[in-house]
Amino acid sequence: MSQAVGPWERRNRRVAYENDWIAVYDDLVVQPDGAPGVYGVVHPKFLAVGVVALDVNDTVLLVGQHRYTLDLFTWSVPGGGVPFDDDPLEGAQRELAEETGASATTWRELARFTLSNSITDGRGIIFLATGLSPGEPHRDGTELGMEIRRVPFDEALRLVDSGEIHDVFTQVGLLAADRHLRERGSAKEPT
Amino acid sequence: MSQAVGPWERRNRRVAYENDWIAVYDDLVVQPDGAPGVYGVVHPKFLAVGVVALDVNDTVLLVGQHRYTLDLFTWSVPGGGVPFDDDPLEGAQRELAEETGASATTWRELARFTLSNSITDGRGIIFLATGLSPGEPHRDGTELGMEIRRVPFDEALRLVDSGEIHDVFTQVGLLAADRHLRERGSAKEPT
Repeated sequence: MSQAVGPWERRNRRVAYENDWIAVYDDLVVQPDGAPGVYGVVHPKFLAVGVVALDVNDTVLLVGQHRYTLDLFTWSVPGGGVPFDDDPLEGAQRELAEETGASATTWRELARFTLSNSITDGRGIIFLATGLSPGEPHRDGTELGMEIRRVPFDEALRLVDSGEIHDVFTQVGLLAADRHLRERGSAKEPT
Repeated sequence: MSQAVGPWERRNRRVAYENDWIAVYDDLVVQPDGAPGVYGVVHPKFLAVGVVALDVNDTVLLVGQHRYTLDLFTWSVPGGGVPFDDDPLEGAQRELAEETGASATTWRELARFTLSNSITDGRGIIFLATGLSPGEPHRDGTELGMEIRRVPFDEALRLVDSGEIHDVFTQVGLLAADRHLRERGSAKEPT
């Protein structure tokens, strides 16, 4: 069944691959210029949420984990996948608690984004969490060996500058938190 | 052939889907806790590059395009996919010229990042381009109907705040440009 998708036409869609986390669609399309083509669309089954958890002493919680996809140990803000039917904020609170044990009194949405829009319809939300209380993490079997670091917020921004923090969710979260705090007038000047 | 991937073990990899732009691997794995599982890895065949092109009057070039994956018209910084063997800077210069016609005298890397690292090994780089000269765009058949807008830089940042600019490459690029310009002391104060 042919279907208009903006200036594109979708002639056919088949599920090329599917697991519990993603589906990949292989679409037969007609491009905006009228040429026939294929379009592969990666559909994540979960909303990506991340949490910039900022403590009273201006430190931010980072979690370190070996990432299977990259075969690299990376530092990022806590976060994970939340079912699209769930409340994103509750999902973010759950992910923060599972990965770090922390809970927070004050939550604010920092950024809402779409991912690599030439290949995926994936979406994400980053929250700012303040008023932290510590607790015990309870991680799942893929998160064994996860580490936690408290990093001064300014240092975390410098790790973004240098590319040592390269996870794009974490970069946008820290940069958006910096902008938010600066606009509120409560953040330090960049050094 | 079994292979260690940090604390994971890859028992088998098969190509589940492939087109000219992405490959999707379906891996049989052993998780860090010893449980068997599957891992789908989305491998983009191109590096994602983006360009924050800043003009002398503090405006930034945005391109507007209907995105097939999202079925949405979105504004983003110019950019595209560059073969991994190509020089990323030359690729960024080519994408800027193709989509907007502009060329620039001064280029600087703003951010280098990995994408949704739970599902992909994709990577991207955002450049800051200044010293712009106009020219004629020469777009491909998927870019028919692309629009160009010159937006004051401060307004572009507010469009990130509001989520009207939601493309994550564009968000990280504009926020990183803001931080870079502020640290250089040449940017306006946020309003």
